[in-house]
Amino acid sequence: MGNKTFVLAPDSFKESMTAKEVCVAMERGLRKVYPEAEYIHVPMADGGEGTVQSLVDASGGRLVEVQVTGPLGIPVSASYGILGDGETAAIEMASASGIQLVDKADRNPLITTTYGTGELIRAALDQGIRKIIIGIGGSATNDGGTGMAEALGVRFLDEAGEPLPRGGGSLDRLATVDVSALDPRLSGTQLIVACDVTNPLCGETGASHVFGPQKGATPELVKQLDANLAHYAEVVKQQLGKDVRDLPGAGAAGGLGAGLMIFTQAELRKGIEIVIEYTGLKQKMADADLVFTGEGGIDFQTKFGKTPFGVARTAKASGKRVIAVAGYIGEGIETLYGEGIDAVFGIVPGASALDKLLAEGPANVERTLENIGRVLKLGE
Amino acid sequence: MGNKTFVLAPDSFKESMTAKEVCVAMERGLRKVYPEAEYIHVPMADGGEGTVQSLVDASGGRLVEVQVTGPLGIPVSASYGILGDGETAAIEMASASGIQLVDKADRNPLITTTYGTGELIRAALDQGIRKIIIGIGGSATNDGGTGMAEALGVRFLDEAGEPLPRGGGSLDRLATVDVSALDPRLSGTQLIVACDVTNPLCGETGASHVFGPQKGATPELVKQLDANLAHYAEVVKQQLGKDVRDLPGAGAAGGLGAGLMIFTQAELRKGIEIVIEYTGLKQKMADADLVFTGEGGIDFQTKFGKTPFGVARTAKASGKRVIAVAGYIGEGIETLYGEGIDAVFGIVPGASALDKLLAEGPANVERTLENIGRVLKLGE
Repeated sequence: MGNKTFVLAPDSFKESMTAKEVCVAMERGLRKVYPEAEYIHVPMADGGEGTVQSLVDASGGRLVEVQVTGPLGIPVSASYGILGDGETAAIEMASASGIQLVDKADRNPLITTTYGTGELIRAALDQGIRKIIIGIGGSATNDGGTGMAEALGVRFLDEAGEPLPRGGGSLDRLATVDVSALDPRLSGTQLIVACDVTNPLCGETGASHVFGPQKGATPELVKQLDANLAHYAEVVKQQLGKDVRDLPGAGAAGGLGAGLMIFTQAELRKGIEIVIEYTGLKQKMADADLVFTGEGGIDFQTKFGKTPFGVARTAKASGKRVIAVAGYIGEGIETLYGEGIDAVFGIVPGASALDKLLAEGPANVERTLENIGRVLKLGE
Repeated sequence: MGNKTFVLAPDSFKESMTAKEVCVAMERGLRKVYPEAEYIHVPMADGGEGTVQSLVDASGGRLVEVQVTGPLGIPVSASYGILGDGETAAIEMASASGIQLVDKADRNPLITTTYGTGELIRAALDQGIRKIIIGIGGSATNDGGTGMAEALGVRFLDEAGEPLPRGGGSLDRLATVDVSALDPRLSGTQLIVACDVTNPLCGETGASHVFGPQKGATPELVKQLDANLAHYAEVVKQQLGKDVRDLPGAGAAGGLGAGLMIFTQAELRKGIEIVIEYTGLKQKMADADLVFTGEGGIDFQTKFGKTPFGVARTAKASGKRVIAVAGYIGEGIETLYGEGIDAVFGIVPGASALDKLLAEGPANVERTLENIGRVLKLGE
């Protein structure tokens, strides 16, 4: 009966609410039942879209906007975050090199480049940052991270010593990788890469075969891109002595995983683990009576590195109970009960058009949390 | 922590589940969390569609099928219930004379008749029944209950002493109401009429004006039907000494309310109150730790005589807590919290087509109740 402490640690509800907005709606609902409770907001993410926003929101940091080179070479306005500690940057590669920046008709992984992602890293280094969290989901590219490396000083040259055009389509002509001008600040900079895929760079489970088609590659192109990345890996191995081809995650983001491993001090980790660490979730739930989480959709896949599952595992390790809410509840949620998610509720009020549901997300979260609070009260 | 007793008292979820099916799904969900609990099923209704089924299910009674005259004179297969006590019948007028029996194009309140409803009453009397609960919602008729009365022996004659054609369109020619052959068993039979509307027989708020249009009446026809009912009331007043014209509920079901008041020992009551009494809801919740209710839709209108509200009031009077679930949660549910509904949850798992949601009703009730149970457990 004493004063309750509730930790609110949802992911964003895609196309409806940021994680922070979900926190606000959750508190609004619970506060009607527990007006005196303490509410600790920990807006979460899992390394995918919204990760920078959540880390910035959770740490009290800020967003920095930068003009960079888009996937097709056209300038785009991208942003990265500086966390509340002032020492750590958070970058989403998709902000500079994401598939959402390229119209469907223009998708062409032969020429799309991660150059803008390298520019974001450089911008962070210019701010004195020496620890960078980088999420690499949602790329439009298949360039092995060569664009990113070029923006940081690496030169990719052909037999004649001429720089290659950007994009994965030219890598078959790669003869020399010149790292002499690689930004020296990188050697003193820790890159924590949020990466949930374990695909190698090449082959049937590699970047081109698995992710190429959704970036616009035909079956023919997939073969070409795969061969080009294999050649790139071979040249790197010969000249730099780094063999990343078959490392898990090398194939993430069109080979940006490999590029980061080759040219930076990169450590690949699961996105949700990074977010849990950098939001201080565990410490923040130390005094919690109950933890609330949620995501746009919850189903059997939630176990594979999604936010509600990560929150539940963290909570379970501390003996805390977790209630989750979702805009969509799919198959297999019963498999979550044993994993630390004590209950799951849908927020949808009834049959309704999706756009209306997305617009009414905050009201639906609020109502659902109020009613969960009302049931909790019954037990007191 | 001891053995829980849960009372499950939902209405049907229209087009998805009968009240009994909702009870079963509720138990299935809760039983996963409380396998040892006692579950008391009280399938409910509010006097509208599903009332007979619920009273039969709640009392362990049975349905009786009867061939009767449909609204347009074509035979239809209708049914009524004999409750578990063997002494009480439950009838829905819509089973014999309902709007759902008439195609939209054929709707014509000039000729539709309640004759079949009278036949249902007669069939119950033939079984030795002397107490009849009759729900009068959903009618296709505007005949003042004259068809019903005719089936029970009353004769409606014109100036020439000829019987009038059936339907509200002929009542302007009514000269004589001959009750000499009225079924004598009716005088010893109690009719409990489930009626939530208070409309008088005639005038702007009368049967023809308010309910005529949805039965196919044009503005012209509405005037004619209203005048006819006024004439009918006048003849009855003159010849039988009964003035029902302005009694609340006389205008229910195209004037069937008036007809029942004129020709039978009718007592009009709120549908939900009748169902609460004849299901024995109050007694059944005597040992309940918690009561669950629900309906297809819950919103601010739920307060106006709907099942979840009736269940909540009954529960509140006994100091019991109530949790409701619904397929659709509309505006204004916060007004229910003070009325005995302690919490309301939607069962819908996400944006989905209505027909899919209707088909998946049982699974969604089960999942939602399981999760409510899981939250209740947290509080223990």
